[in-house]
Amino acid sequence: MKVLWLAAHPEERSLNSSLKNEGIRTLRDHGHEVQLSDLYAMKWNPVVDADDFGHSPTDRLHISSAAHRAYTHGTLSPDIRTEQEKVTWADTLVVQFPLWWYGMPAILKGWFDRVFIRGFAYGIDDPATGQALRYGDGPLTGKRAMAVVTAGARPSSIGPRGVNGDLDDLLFPLHHGTFWYTGMSVAPPFLVPSADRTTPAAFEDTAARLRTRLLELPSTPPLPFRRQNSPDYDPETLTLHPDLAPHSTGLALHYTDAP
Amino acid sequence: MKVLWLAAHPEERSLNSSLKNEGIRTLRDHGHEVQLSDLYAMKWNPVVDADDFGHSPTDRLHISSAAHRAYTHGTLSPDIRTEQEKVTWADTLVVQFPLWWYGMPAILKGWFDRVFIRGFAYGIDDPATGQALRYGDGPLTGKRAMAVVTAGARPSSIGPRGVNGDLDDLLFPLHHGTFWYTGMSVAPPFLVPSADRTTPAAFEDTAARLRTRLLELPSTPPLPFRRQNSPDYDPETLTLHPDLAPHSTGLALHYTDAP
Repeated sequence: MKVLWLAAHPEERSLNSSLKNEGIRTLRDHGHEVQLSDLYAMKWNPVVDADDFGHSPTDRLHISSAAHRAYTHGTLSPDIRTEQEKVTWADTLVVQFPLWWYGMPAILKGWFDRVFIRGFAYGIDDPATGQALRYGDGPLTGKRAMAVVTAGARPSSIGPRGVNGDLDDLLFPLHHGTFWYTGMSVAPPFLVPSADRTTPAAFEDTAARLRTRLLELPSTPPLPFRRQNSPDYDPETLTLHPDLAPHSTGLALHYTDAP
Repeated sequence: MKVLWLAAHPEERSLNSSLKNEGIRTLRDHGHEVQLSDLYAMKWNPVVDADDFGHSPTDRLHISSAAHRAYTHGTLSPDIRTEQEKVTWADTLVVQFPLWWYGMPAILKGWFDRVFIRGFAYGIDDPATGQALRYGDGPLTGKRAMAVVTAGARPSSIGPRGVNGDLDDLLFPLHHGTFWYTGMSVAPPFLVPSADRTTPAAFEDTAARLRTRLLELPSTPPLPFRRQNSPDYDPETLTLHPDLAPHSTGLALHYTDAP
């Protein structure tokens, strides 16, 4: 594999960083190539603004148009281009973060906001049908992604009936709305619950579980999201056909195995 | 009302900014007080790091502990304290943003990451029972919040069976995992779909709808989330009791009106 590993924790002596180092070492020991974007170490700027696009402040900024223009003209900010080159190089993204307010830390959210712009990560139409290529088909089709998430919550509380909501639902904006939207396949997330009560023995178990998951990535069945450009969705309303998943509510609708 | 309005769009000539100006003018015209945190205009720093807490770089940073210590000792970074004072002053938060990758722009996510720290927004126990006060009970109980969201998606595609997922589910980490977690009540979100295809007539309709929603906030029924410290959840596993919402799947479980 060619792995781009995104990390988003400010403390090098943290559980997150230990797992990052363990994961990267494991991959390299098994002959895989790894590039690391350690966003805190890089002092990554997560804020989209006109400077990203060399946009004149006197003109009204329409972000997706300005981004697309800068992308096609090669005038994007160099820090964005560097990250896009890593994504292009990689066949696998590992996106590792502590769950803050049930989502990504801002520094990581802003990596997607700035790097995954129109032209690069979405906004391509099928030349034959004119349909937008997204959700299962897109510029990043052929790549896979996996989230590696630490959370303070105990396991039951972030599961299917837990008070925090199920992790798969909480990560839907990343898994489905970002990875799958751009065409990537999505491996089930790797969760480290009760992360602020880790013991040395628990760390060893977690590290072993992570090593296994990483090395098995090429053969891991992805989350079975439905393709937008399939008969499952009405092409006009972009809603799921009424005879599909009649017994499901919520985000599970968008999995092909929903009852 | 005393309203804190959070805004997160980089372009003052945008639909977002027009709606922001319209909303704030309407509230003030009706005698309400408004403070504005326009995060792009403020050049808000969204990245949590040791500097927030005056933390020595030689000591390992454990964020929630360092944040709690700095909060209780009054040594938090001044920009964070200023925002906390606005939240304390307000009885109502309006949180306005364009939906980017199905979530908040990084600059706004990082407002919650940095401002909503332990001691200020969560991490309080009930002195009588020792139970953690969260999800319906917390330091911000008595306040209300509403998201105002623009999205490129057409209405059907971001509704209950839309390919993008339903807006209420996509915003669950903000509505339930942030607002409700800290004790705030949550008004249904105000959505502006098809935002990049707005016409002058559509803008007038949207502005009128927003004015109505803002002025009706004091009497708007909140989203019926369940309280954590209610008989609905098992206090050990923090899972919903098996006899509740037996026919629901997904995040709808956590609404008291789930079937």
